[in-house]
Amino acid sequence: MSSIKMFEKPLGMRDTFPQIFNKTEKIREVTKHFLQIRGYDFIKTPSVEYYDTIGRASAIQDASLFKLFDNQGNTLVLRPDMTTPIIRVASSKLLKEKTPLRLAYFANVFRAQEFEGGRPAEFEQMGIELIGDTTVFADAEVIATAIELLQAIGLQEFKITIGHAGILQCVLTDYTESAEEAAQLRELLVKRNYVGFEEAVESFDLPKAKSDALMQFINEATNLTRLEEIEKYVRKNEALQYMRELANLLDVAELADYIDFDFTLSSHMNYYTGMLFEVFASGSGFALGNGGRYDGLLHEFGVATGATGFGIRVDRLLEILPLPTIEKQNVLVLFDAEAFGAALQQTKQLRAQGYHTTLQNKSEVCEDMHALYERVIVVTKDGEIQ
Amino acid sequence: MSSIKMFEKPLGMRDTFPQIFNKTEKIREVTKHFLQIRGYDFIKTPSVEYYDTIGRASAIQDASLFKLFDNQGNTLVLRPDMTTPIIRVASSKLLKEKTPLRLAYFANVFRAQEFEGGRPAEFEQMGIELIGDTTVFADAEVIATAIELLQAIGLQEFKITIGHAGILQCVLTDYTESAEEAAQLRELLVKRNYVGFEEAVESFDLPKAKSDALMQFINEATNLTRLEEIEKYVRKNEALQYMRELANLLDVAELADYIDFDFTLSSHMNYYTGMLFEVFASGSGFALGNGGRYDGLLHEFGVATGATGFGIRVDRLLEILPLPTIEKQNVLVLFDAEAFGAALQQTKQLRAQGYHTTLQNKSEVCEDMHALYERVIVVTKDGEIQ
Repeated sequence: MSSIKMFEKPLGMRDTFPQIFNKTEKIREVTKHFLQIRGYDFIKTPSVEYYDTIGRASAIQDASLFKLFDNQGNTLVLRPDMTTPIIRVASSKLLKEKTPLRLAYFANVFRAQEFEGGRPAEFEQMGIELIGDTTVFADAEVIATAIELLQAIGLQEFKITIGHAGILQCVLTDYTESAEEAAQLRELLVKRNYVGFEEAVESFDLPKAKSDALMQFINEATNLTRLEEIEKYVRKNEALQYMRELANLLDVAELADYIDFDFTLSSHMNYYTGMLFEVFASGSGFALGNGGRYDGLLHEFGVATGATGFGIRVDRLLEILPLPTIEKQNVLVLFDAEAFGAALQQTKQLRAQGYHTTLQNKSEVCEDMHALYERVIVVTKDGEIQ
Repeated sequence: MSSIKMFEKPLGMRDTFPQIFNKTEKIREVTKHFLQIRGYDFIKTPSVEYYDTIGRASAIQDASLFKLFDNQGNTLVLRPDMTTPIIRVASSKLLKEKTPLRLAYFANVFRAQEFEGGRPAEFEQMGIELIGDTTVFADAEVIATAIELLQAIGLQEFKITIGHAGILQCVLTDYTESAEEAAQLRELLVKRNYVGFEEAVESFDLPKAKSDALMQFINEATNLTRLEEIEKYVRKNEALQYMRELANLLDVAELADYIDFDFTLSSHMNYYTGMLFEVFASGSGFALGNGGRYDGLLHEFGVATGATGFGIRVDRLLEILPLPTIEKQNVLVLFDAEAFGAALQQTKQLRAQGYHTTLQNKSEVCEDMHALYERVIVVTKDGEIQ
């Protein structure tokens, strides 16, 4: 074993120490109960999948995939997201039993990192997929579930920013002169590069009416609270009507305060076909999560229905949530060899009372250990010293 | 996407459906509470590690490792067990803060399969490692924790079979004529090939006293309840005295009924150096778990102390435990588009009462869906139909 690698981990791989483990578990428990009571069933899928099945379809760029080979020479990948594996399961088996299907997950996903930039190569995601319901009610349920889940977890300030892949595509097509121009602008919006967007529009040699409209669009179509403000740009009335109904349902559910609209919103997840959204918390520089409607992915798996869902990055949630408070003090019971039986009885009583109690023979304890417990009891053959 | 692979998973990889997910979660919750109250801290380690660090040291044979490469050309592995990663973490960081150290895990591990034999390539393991205590009290704690954990999970009938790597090695060395003969016999015992053992002894051309002793040993040294029965074979008094103390401590803890001794017990985990054990449940053909003392592994990581622990296969536990009972009925609330608000209020009340309640617009529901709920409520604009 080369000593240099002895204690190292691969690029972006992390250990999770007890305090963060407990914080993650708390989120997991709340999420599990919250989603199950709403009729969502949790499933797990394997960490390793065929590249042909999951890698290609997953919309994660190829360079971010961990690839390996089985002994038949097939290419395998560590799952880069959970949506595609869940759609594999749903379309191969579960959709025959029950539609609409409500599935949930709490799982680690993998994204290879090319250099040490502080980004994790393995992290936890949690989310839902609502499969087999193509109506606006399903999209409203997904957004409402995201909002109420984050409330249940204890997140104080956050916003859901909603866009629409179809409306954006329509605007970009209407105000450019070629599909290439529209695609280039879309790419820049995926990266939120608004300066690049304006430079690209200027370079395109468009009629003034079109370039003016595009410039105005990216200034006005973000942070909307009222849908009327977007109407002048949009020819696609059906999609706009859909968004009005969505906004109305979220209003009925008393969640309007948590949402705004941004019709420049675009995702590298190119399977989003309709409504899409991102979750932003104050205090986090990155999106906490995202979601949307992705009927196209189901069609790729040969199923003629729609699906909508969201995923939340648990690692980013952990960064902004406070540590959970510890309810009970930790107790250390030290014993002399002759007093094992008495110490064991004492320990059993403390554990029955809910104290986290470590039973430890005295001879092997380092001095520092005492400092880590709120209470230390020493049991000797002559009796007990607190 | 080749249609043949569309819904397939790599060899040995499995999906976990909701019922089994819930059963696993139940085990996880009980285990977490059980071990935390005993002073064990849970940690997580990455799924991917350097081959040089974890792959070589892990005592899992090379053909069972999933290997991949990073972009610097390093060989990585999907972790084949949890003991080695935990010792990496402990020896690089945690041991400086606290000794003895009590760590626990609930994690998936990976073992590549060469053909479809029904064995999983990814499965969950849970266990503990007690690091930095070289006394018999630590070994007794580990065995007692295994027994009481299985009781807490609800397993009815099981046995812990305890052996000792040092005692077995001593017997095999004393009654053979070369290290090669001893190693060959040890290999056969790892595979529990008693017939092969007897054939090998006959083929060795040993003095009659030695071959007789070996034959008698493998007949008499299994399923022992009293340690006196082994004394005649064993020259190594120190180890035998250690086992007597261990038996005595488990007796004081009122756990003697769960244990027996088998001094032919040997493990492919060649890092076990002292006491080792296996867990067998009636109803399972395989060992449910195993454990033991593995001071040698710590020395490999440059730490001059000892460690002891156990791991339980969650997948095998799942096979023999009954399904958990469901406490609350599932309710399906169907609504007409005009009745969304009323249905939402109704649903909120049911959820607050603890019913798993699915809210679903009527238009998208397949007929079969009704059958999957104990109660169906239909909310129309004219009122509610049960």
